[in-house]
Amino acid sequence: MSQYRVLIDANDEKGLVHKVSSVFYNYDLNILSNSEFVDKESNKFFMRSVVDGNVDKDELTAAVTKVLPVDSSIKVIEPKKKNIIIMATKEMHALGDILIRHEAGELEANILAVISNYDTLESLVSKFDIPYITISHEGLERPEHENKIIETINGFKDVDYIVLAKYMRILTPRFVEAFEDKIMNIHHSFLPAFIGANPYKQAYDRGVKIIGATAHFVNNNLDEGPIIAQEVIHVNHAYGWRDMQRSGRDVEKVVLSRALKLALEDRIFVYANRTVIF
Amino acid sequence: MSQYRVLIDANDEKGLVHKVSSVFYNYDLNILSNSEFVDKESNKFFMRSVVDGNVDKDELTAAVTKVLPVDSSIKVIEPKKKNIIIMATKEMHALGDILIRHEAGELEANILAVISNYDTLESLVSKFDIPYITISHEGLERPEHENKIIETINGFKDVDYIVLAKYMRILTPRFVEAFEDKIMNIHHSFLPAFIGANPYKQAYDRGVKIIGATAHFVNNNLDEGPIIAQEVIHVNHAYGWRDMQRSGRDVEKVVLSRALKLALEDRIFVYANRTVIF
Amino acid sequence: MSQYRVLIDANDEKGLVHKVSSVFYNYDLNILSNSEFVDKESNKFFMRSVVDGNVDKDELTAAVTKVLPVDSSIKVIEPKKKNIIIMATKEMHALGDILIRHEAGELEANILAVISNYDTLESLVSKFDIPYITISHEGLERPEHENKIIETINGFKDVDYIVLAKYMRILTPRFVEAFEDKIMNIHHSFLPAFIGANPYKQAYDRGVKIIGATAHFVNNNLDEGPIIAQEVIHVNHAYGWRDMQRSGRDVEKVVLSRALKLALEDRIFVYANRTVIF
Amino acid sequence: MSQYRVLIDANDEKGLVHKVSSVFYNYDLNILSNSEFVDKESNKFFMRSVVDGNVDKDELTAAVTKVLPVDSSIKVIEPKKKNIIIMATKEMHALGDILIRHEAGELEANILAVISNYDTLESLVSKFDIPYITISHEGLERPEHENKIIETINGFKDVDYIVLAKYMRILTPRFVEAFEDKIMNIHHSFLPAFIGANPYKQAYDRGVKIIGATAHFVNNNLDEGPIIAQEVIHVNHAYGWRDMQRSGRDVEKVVLSRALKLALEDRIFVYANRTVIF
Repeated sequence: MSQYRVLIDANDEKGLVHKVSSVFYNYDLNILSNSEFVDKESNKFFMRSVVDGNVDKDELTAAVTKVLPVDSSIKVIEPKKKNIIIMATKEMHALGDILIRHEAGELEANILAVISNYDTLESLVSKFDIPYITISHEGLERPEHENKIIETINGFKDVDYIVLAKYMRILTPRFVEAFEDKIMNIHHSFLPAFIGANPYKQAYDRGVKIIGATAHFVNNNLDEGPIIAQEVIHVNHAYGWRDMQRSGRDVEKVVLSRALKLALEDRIFVYANRTVIF
Repeated sequence: MSQYRVLIDANDEKGLVHKVSSVFYNYDLNILSNSEFVDKESNKFFMRSVVDGNVDKDELTAAVTKVLPVDSSIKVIEPKKKNIIIMATKEMHALGDILIRHEAGELEANILAVISNYDTLESLVSKFDIPYITISHEGLERPEHENKIIETINGFKDVDYIVLAKYMRILTPRFVEAFEDKIMNIHHSFLPAFIGANPYKQAYDRGVKIIGATAHFVNNNLDEGPIIAQEVIHVNHAYGWRDMQRSGRDVEKVVLSRALKLALEDRIFVYANRTVIF
Repeated sequence: MSQYRVLIDANDEKGLVHKVSSVFYNYDLNILSNSEFVDKESNKFFMRSVVDGNVDKDELTAAVTKVLPVDSSIKVIEPKKKNIIIMATKEMHALGDILIRHEAGELEANILAVISNYDTLESLVSKFDIPYITISHEGLERPEHENKIIETINGFKDVDYIVLAKYMRILTPRFVEAFEDKIMNIHHSFLPAFIGANPYKQAYDRGVKIIGATAHFVNNNLDEGPIIAQEVIHVNHAYGWRDMQRSGRDVEKVVLSRALKLALEDRIFVYANRTVIF
Repeated sequence: MSQYRVLIDANDEKGLVHKVSSVFYNYDLNILSNSEFVDKESNKFFMRSVVDGNVDKDELTAAVTKVLPVDSSIKVIEPKKKNIIIMATKEMHALGDILIRHEAGELEANILAVISNYDTLESLVSKFDIPYITISHEGLERPEHENKIIETINGFKDVDYIVLAKYMRILTPRFVEAFEDKIMNIHHSFLPAFIGANPYKQAYDRGVKIIGATAHFVNNNLDEGPIIAQEVIHVNHAYGWRDMQRSGRDVEKVVLSRALKLALEDRIFVYANRTVIF
């Protein structure tokens, strides 16, 4: 008995559910869960089914492919731990939350390494027997620095996700392209408000009554990639921007961990700079 | 072209999605939306599909029935306004919210009448050209009073839902049985906390930091019917119980209206004192 | 026995609480509630006390003024209904919520009139015996149209607040100046995200997972006045922008009514494009 | 220059703010923040001021005491790290969150030790160079087991708080009395709903749409001590009780850490089984 996550992203047309469910039925598979969504505006069909039964992965993939329009995307995934690399700078909260969840066995993930431009977090990370790699940016041009990181990451095999857990340097398009659709970031604001540097200061200056955090995939426009998860908390006039920053950390870590969990469980579809999440 | 909401409640077995979607496919129907859920614990399968196409309602019902296990429940519903009767006592907020939504055309409902044990709200209701019926409980035994209400309600045809918008008298089992599965209530607490009288006073005495409201269907155990929707707000030490009551009203009205909307759109399945909501 | 709300806005210095509370003590006043806040960054001191006792309003004002720095702002207010004018366009929810609260006696306000550029809402407003004044913008230049509204408003005496309950036209600086610090607006987004037209469409296009609403005073920069209250709700990929709009209405009306209540109870201080709210 | 937190709990009478602020003024102290609250129902006055200046702690205490009613409680506290002992059983999330915050320097606390009835968490705790003491309950009567824990705790000096970070055994009144007003617990439900064992199972069975967590001080009635903080999350029909448990952990840890922070900053007053929180 094998379990598979079947992810389908296709142009919508009549009968898609019928056709895919026919394949499952013919192979005598149990459907453990099933979600579909049609975006009428773009005419896109999304489906995520978790099935189990006796069928070979390639055979199932081929059978589903056969009944779908030619330009569909079909993924049949066996649940297993994904490999992640975490990048951080100096702040401990988001990284720490992932480390504790990892230690508690909550995450379907192997943490291959933590990469930082400072050695500040080494003492924490090394407690968990996870490699900590400091790649200082000092004295380096940005491309040089990124090259070193890219090389380091490429030294690991099968990296599924790169998680920016408050990595505070801007990434160039070259870096982003090198790991397309694999980079997840936590932005410390309720995007698209307060794009850019020190969003808590910006939020304070604007006098907002709610602050938030946004987990998103990274594309070439700073803070503009597809949003995975957002959360907010209420603040009031008594919050200076450092108080907002302090309180915001609790939101940041929760949102990043939630987004990471969704990715590890193959629950996210990305299209048109948007996400469908089942 | 007709649109139908197809609601299925069946014992789970392999192939249900396949079988139902085959029927839709064979009749060349568009699936506008589709939701399924399997409760593994009770082995129950729930499905709500919105379809459109050229097919007779009875024919579609028969076709779906044919492919499902014999003891399944199948409903094929044409979207149209449902008939509701509102019961209230003296408070204006929950009733007022429904009246405004009705006036704005937000609700798929005809309000047949408002019934109250006081005439307090008559001035409001009559502004909207909706019949207001005062049935005072004074000098009457509870069964007598309820008989009068039951008779009044039975004087209307095709009542789909009875909405208790802060109706502050306890209903007897006989009343509840007379309108089984049709009575929706807003309870002014986050159930199951603070069952019974004056929940805000209870909440205050307990020193809670959050208060809430619960919309639920009414069964024979007071405040114990299946929950449809809940919402909360934060309070603090500066809130006396009357402040909680005042703030709680905003939650009550929002939750009741949300629950009513779900019912009017046929999005609620009830089983085992629980609800599945699509 | 009279009750007063004493509002103080001063440059901070040692002893302010001591000095003001001495005045209250000397007049043998009860302090029913007391809130202070010092903004360290701007060195501003804010205080709101509710007191009762036997003292003349002018005498109390003079006594408090005497102990404070010369450039302080002191307001001593007797609680009474404030006069408001509501401006709306075609949407019923925010206006309707205020009308119901007004009818329920929840608001310390007289609604002098509702002014709209359409007659759509006349049928609703006239139910409540409140004057409805349609001032169509058709065929008029913006200044002409605004002149007519300004004249109409100026025809009423002692207008305390002008509440924009989804008034969908942009106001010119001239209009804003005519009623400085008196105009309150509900913006249908979580500001400062999605400034400008159709924020729900903007939110949808950006793929956000949370939408919100913001009540703020209006100054000359569109959607950039001091924020009074904000609230949000979670959305997901299944929400088209019209669904967001529909769900957003519940947030809009709650936030606007909350902000209005704060203003009517003299709980808001404005400075540096920010609000302190007690 | 010294900084003090001045905490006052007194029977209310006219002039208390005036009298206390006079003391601060006479000593030429800066008021960094100031909060007061009067509970009209019980006629209790609460005040928390943070002041700095040149004054001896005992002298300040005496001066404030002198101006207040004789039965008032006055505490003048110099901000410094408090000593805490954490008790846990097998779950890692709440403990882990405190450990990371401690490591990040976010908490004004020294963690003296973690005590557990299992050795499950030893590997985690020892990473942080914090003593881990396993006191197994196996083969012991409850009083015997508690005696061992009490002795262990009493072996440490100046324990300010005992934090139950998912310690899953019921404490006897004797234990609670031994550390009166010092024990803080996280209960994995929105109290007072679902008192007792396995609240997530109870919540699932009741079909609730919101679950929560409650941090409270522990008194002799199980789960009935004064509430410090509560938080909730929305769930739906697709959540089995284990899903609720999993999602609930994120709320539990956030709420416990928030309550702990409030206690460490001397922001909590307890009276009448309630808390005032500044």
